[in-house]
Amino acid sequence: MSTYSITVAYNGAPFSGFAKQPGQLTVQGELEQAFELLFRRALPTTCAGRTDSGVHARGQIVSFDVDDAELRGRSERSLLRSLNALTHDDIAVIDLRRRAPGFSARFDATARRYRYFIANGPTPPLFMRDFCWHVGKPLDVGAMREAAAHLIGEHDFKSFCMAASAEGKRTFRRVDEVNLFVESPNGEDLLVVEVVGNAFLHSMVRAIVGTLVAVGVGNREPSWVADVLAARDRKAAGENAPARGLVLWEVEYPEGLA
Amino acid sequence: MSTYSITVAYNGAPFSGFAKQPGQLTVQGELEQAFELLFRRALPTTCAGRTDSGVHARGQIVSFDVDDAELRGRSERSLLRSLNALTHDDIAVIDLRRRAPGFSARFDATARRYRYFIANGPTPPLFMRDFCWHVGKPLDVGAMREAAAHLIGEHDFKSFCMAASAEGKRTFRRVDEVNLFVESPNGEDLLVVEVVGNAFLHSMVRAIVGTLVAVGVGNREPSWVADVLAARDRKAAGENAPARGLVLWEVEYPEGLA
Repeated sequence: MSTYSITVAYNGAPFSGFAKQPGQLTVQGELEQAFELLFRRALPTTCAGRTDSGVHARGQIVSFDVDDAELRGRSERSLLRSLNALTHDDIAVIDLRRRAPGFSARFDATARRYRYFIANGPTPPLFMRDFCWHVGKPLDVGAMREAAAHLIGEHDFKSFCMAASAEGKRTFRRVDEVNLFVESPNGEDLLVVEVVGNAFLHSMVRAIVGTLVAVGVGNREPSWVADVLAARDRKAAGENAPARGLVLWEVEYPEGLA
Repeated sequence: MSTYSITVAYNGAPFSGFAKQPGQLTVQGELEQAFELLFRRALPTTCAGRTDSGVHARGQIVSFDVDDAELRGRSERSLLRSLNALTHDDIAVIDLRRRAPGFSARFDATARRYRYFIANGPTPPLFMRDFCWHVGKPLDVGAMREAAAHLIGEHDFKSFCMAASAEGKRTFRRVDEVNLFVESPNGEDLLVVEVVGNAFLHSMVRAIVGTLVAVGVGNREPSWVADVLAARDRKAAGENAPARGLVLWEVEYPEGLA
């Protein structure tokens, strides 16, 4: 057996999230169906980030084990072409790599980087409309940065986790960076909220962004974020930002496994 | 009467082009319907570029005349808000300006700038997929630049005009610039073909891009473009590039009218 991973980008809009669910269109369901056609057997896959319904990815990593004989001498290029032909149009399989034996896209990941796109002009942008949250009220980015500083480090993020998913689970996570910067792809100003951490709870990034926006529009003071963390209660934080603005950007692995 | 213009951005996908047509969803139809609701009378509009079905705009200019009394003292902001609320979601009215009396978005324009986006990687891009042409074969940008040089200046562009539209019409136009450059909005490499000219024939930019791509993939030599121009026959040029990659980017007016 050899271990491989693929890098996958997808437009999350048509999918009920990454994780396979019976009777639903999911990214994992599409990938595993393609693998089954290619390798003539069920091939379990593991992903770095189980993105929610409507959330996009630019650098999702998916690992799987396959016997070299099953590749039947096909090149990486040929395998990628088949995978892309066999999966949904909104999925692009970007590369395929051989990994160290037993590599897991999920358990070996040391950091996950998400980007959340916010349009803050009076009208929604043209190109990025389906990939952003259009906030009409002007945002105070300085206040949002001040608020974000409270999140850095290892904390109990229970207030930022979908309540049902937090039940009886360890909700400590480490957030390494929250970067706020303006990008202008194709001349469209977008505020990017980039969150980097070791791992994330269910809908944690969207709860973080919703909370920072509550500060940005002036509904809350930056220091409120410390109270939200301390409350350990989902109702304390801001609303989830809409899924369509969130992109799983990149996943990091230790040098030897990269 | 005072003359005003609006700057309009739109995702062309749902529209049968800019120009009003009975029974069709068009950008002009949507705008004039909104004006009629706002001003309680039909208000004819003139645009800088009659974009085709599926073609987008970032900086379409639309002019109209209205009596100042009809504005009923409403601010620009309030008028923009109403226009955006009354038009299709894929239309964004970005600004409103008062112009010199009698200003025409069409006849006073001195230059139109179009951008055409091409994705040239093995898989289509995530964010720009609906706004680009995905060309799988590698493109020789140097050859495309050499080919494009033949188009600069005043020429009879009959070979680059939809045949039916060229019938009995003057088909001379002036192309000032054809710029090819790579942009990486959100980390996605795109080849941009920017064409600037005084005015354009029906589907001229798309025929130019299709012709340059025929050179870029190696089907034709750069010098072929000179033969295409000389032929004065639509069948001599390359196929039209798909509408979804084309964006009316900007329109220029003389200093005094800007």
